[in-house]
Amino acid sequence: MTEEAKVEKKPADNVVFIGKKPSMAYVLGVITQFTNGQPEVHIKARGRSISRAVDVAEIVKRRFMPDVKVKSIDIGTEERELEDKTKINVSTINLVLAKE
Amino acid sequence: MTEEAKVEKKPADNVVFIGKKPSMAYVLGVITQFTNGQPEVHIKARGRSISRAVDVAEIVKRRFMPDVKVKSIDIGTEERELEDKTKINVSTINLVLAKE
Repeated sequence: MTEEAKVEKKPADNVVFIGKKPSMAYVLGVITQFTNGQPEVHIKARGRSISRAVDVAEIVKRRFMPDVKVKSIDIGTEERELEDKTKINVSTINLVLAKE
Repeated sequence: MTEEAKVEKKPADNVVFIGKKPSMAYVLGVITQFTNGQPEVHIKARGRSISRAVDVAEIVKRRFMPDVKVKSIDIGTEERELEDKTKINVSTINLVLAKE
């Protein structure tokens, strides 16, 4: 938090959304955010991509940045409307990684 | 925690391991544990089943037991050896649900 004054405010720049690409693409995204000076990075995913989000967090902290810790993990549910107007619930996850 | 004296010690009885069955099978397992008097239930999963573990936690607390909260979420990595002796890393999750 004492580092915050040095970092320019760029909203949502420290968020990595997990999709269908290989985990390593997102791992690189997270590392880039930290290298750019972000004190913490949010990894967000929905549905089946949640497993990949956990892989990304684990790979970043175990293989590349041992000084990064999992600060918080939140789960939730989002309602999505399909093309035929059916509503389905989708689980979400938000993993926050932070430099110590 | 004040309820603990009433509950018999049955180690690991309050753990639900998530596999390949439909989410609702595990939802029922979690609800059964709470109904049997467990003050908290651990939902554990590895690899691709992690998404389903989050689904199970969300369905239990949103649809069936609104007095149940997510007490903690931990992620980790396990090393597993394949049949050809190759070692691979698998992500893990442990979601703890607790009655308020």
